[in-house]
Amino acid sequence: MKILNGGLENVPGFKYSAIKCGIKYSDRLDYSAIFSEKPCNASGVFTKNKIFAAPVQLCRERINNPVKAILINATNANACTGTEGYENAVKLTGNIAEKINAEKNSILMCSTGIIGHQLPVSKMLDSHKSLVEHAAPENGKILPEAIMTTDTFPKSLSVSFETTIGEFTIAGTAKGSGMIAPDMATLLSFVVTNAPVSKADLDCFFKSSVNKSFNSITIDGDMSTNDTAIILSPDSNEYLTKQDDLNNFEKALTYVLTELATMLVKDGEGSTKLVKINVKGARSHNDAELAARAISESLLVKTAFFGKDPNWGRIAAAAGYSGAEIHEYCLSISFENIPLLQNGKPVNFDMEKLGKILEQDNFSVTVDLGIGEACATMITSDISYDYIKINAEYST
Amino acid sequence: MKILNGGLENVPGFKYSAIKCGIKYSDRLDYSAIFSEKPCNASGVFTKNKIFAAPVQLCRERINNPVKAILINATNANACTGTEGYENAVKLTGNIAEKINAEKNSILMCSTGIIGHQLPVSKMLDSHKSLVEHAAPENGKILPEAIMTTDTFPKSLSVSFETTIGEFTIAGTAKGSGMIAPDMATLLSFVVTNAPVSKADLDCFFKSSVNKSFNSITIDGDMSTNDTAIILSPDSNEYLTKQDDLNNFEKALTYVLTELATMLVKDGEGSTKLVKINVKGARSHNDAELAARAISESLLVKTAFFGKDPNWGRIAAAAGYSGAEIHEYCLSISFENIPLLQNGKPVNFDMEKLGKILEQDNFSVTVDLGIGEACATMITSDISYDYIKINAEYST
Repeated sequence: MKILNGGLENVPGFKYSAIKCGIKYSDRLDYSAIFSEKPCNASGVFTKNKIFAAPVQLCRERINNPVKAILINATNANACTGTEGYENAVKLTGNIAEKINAEKNSILMCSTGIIGHQLPVSKMLDSHKSLVEHAAPENGKILPEAIMTTDTFPKSLSVSFETTIGEFTIAGTAKGSGMIAPDMATLLSFVVTNAPVSKADLDCFFKSSVNKSFNSITIDGDMSTNDTAIILSPDSNEYLTKQDDLNNFEKALTYVLTELATMLVKDGEGSTKLVKINVKGARSHNDAELAARAISESLLVKTAFFGKDPNWGRIAAAAGYSGAEIHEYCLSISFENIPLLQNGKPVNFDMEKLGKILEQDNFSVTVDLGIGEACATMITSDISYDYIKINAEYST
Repeated sequence: MKILNGGLENVPGFKYSAIKCGIKYSDRLDYSAIFSEKPCNASGVFTKNKIFAAPVQLCRERINNPVKAILINATNANACTGTEGYENAVKLTGNIAEKINAEKNSILMCSTGIIGHQLPVSKMLDSHKSLVEHAAPENGKILPEAIMTTDTFPKSLSVSFETTIGEFTIAGTAKGSGMIAPDMATLLSFVVTNAPVSKADLDCFFKSSVNKSFNSITIDGDMSTNDTAIILSPDSNEYLTKQDDLNNFEKALTYVLTELATMLVKDGEGSTKLVKINVKGARSHNDAELAARAISESLLVKTAFFGKDPNWGRIAAAAGYSGAEIHEYCLSISFENIPLLQNGKPVNFDMEKLGKILEQDNFSVTVDLGIGEACATMITSDISYDYIKINAEYST
């Protein structure tokens, strides 16, 4: 596997477009599209929220069709918009299908932004000519910016990998920021590859890679109405079938998604630190996950990270209420390689050495439950004044 | 029922003491005690956290004994302190028992403060003479201050109520602030009454009143290692037995606990608003509670309250991931009497009128799931810059 410079633009067979449509604000890229030359196998992972947006409904219905394009708008979620919202998504995708001579059910749509407002459909329809005309591979460079809401930087990357039938490329982009939680960690993520992968394999690998990446990060524990991750791979007569080839594909895919997930946490609203929570010694994998999640989502733990406070008591308390089996006398906690608690007993530690770790913008905390063999990891962020500022001011 | 001026000092048969022992800081009331003239029936509700403090262990063992006193210290939780921490609690309560000529198992102890530090036992033992000598009913006025950690004001109240065997009084105090969550909403609460109530009735009424009050509030969703609520009622030859009398007792008790719970939310770390979340139209009571909790604990909802933003989308999203059965087309949301969403459709509203509600430091939000008859209420607070400040700076 080779990490490439650049992102979406590196994958042959795809074109992108991103324009300033004026959906909510007048001067930002807010409407974009991914076009594939060939019909694609598509796979998607969607929010588990029972209140889900119209475009999520539309994607769920069409994800098993051959896919030719994805329309994406920022600044308006098209959620809680009823039948009208759904019909708008049908209308917009239908119009794009006409313009590119594709089946109307081959166009997906994703939206992100404010809940409860109808999309400005005629303005968006009017922009379709321009959206289609501007499609070009190099616009893969600006699409990551066009899908952002409160993100502070665009996120994308690409890798290439070898197979017995040649070299292929995978590229991905994501936008996140708030409302990042397990069980669909990102608001929107799009992955494209020129590697020909059968629909069945694509579904399997995409779901498992999403579990290892987006579903293992948390910023504020909320879950959005619009969370969607989609991968496109061109239809083909010659799919990757050899186990080694598929392994290389999976490895590259998981790498791309994990890097995107890490970028999302780094850009967590107002976050200043990225902390990896390793739970080990759990009785079961489920217990390890419960503990890792409770610690990762605890406001008290996250504010302590922000305050550079090695408050292992809050970590122990969060593990204690997580639902995982836990015994005080078996519990050990360390920050990087410095133990603070060993088998339930506080350890004297070198505050200066620990202080240096807490100053870092990236460190790990290991929580050993000491009663089994299972482990789990989550990546979390601290929570700062800016989280409050961003979310108090991002307004209807 | 009559609301009285003052608090604990109004209940005959109890004395209090509160001193500056210097447990962590040199110049604050940090060590206190409640003494009963007669042995009392006691009832307690404790944290469900699997990591619980030594004094919680001690109280659980002794709560069914006749109780003569409760020792309370602030600034040190005596949690994650192992066998030594437990033995310290035994030693301190044993010493007090000697000093007041009581059974050693008749003394309870509660602690709150930092996790993972041993209590300064000899300093505390040295203060016991003074603690016992200063015991007086009027010190009920200062005890609420002595049990505070990050609380910004002491919390107490008292009421009297009539029965067929005379008038009785109930008084309570609580300290909370952070780590306030359902399933034991307060760090510490103490209730005393001169009403003679049998142990069985006391257990029953106290648990149900705690459920209606402390377990229906949330500030940050965390659950402490030390949460404890205890009620004392004097042993007697003539318990309240008539249904009307017991009803009056329960009503007064629930009033006291609900008022204390409301004070806790008002004093939620850095909170500027108190918001009552009413969920109705749920398929089951459990569903109503799930939705009310998810909304009450959502950081995005709480920051929106702080930002005076009527962001019903975040409320709908939280209800959507709560696990409750919910259908977008049946969902209605209103702030006080102003509907913002009706059967899944946004309603045009008078922004000026709504703005006035959002400016208030106290209002209610009603979420009608529209598919059943069950309802539930939770009280929550907003989350502000000060929450972060307090919790980033409250340090080990």
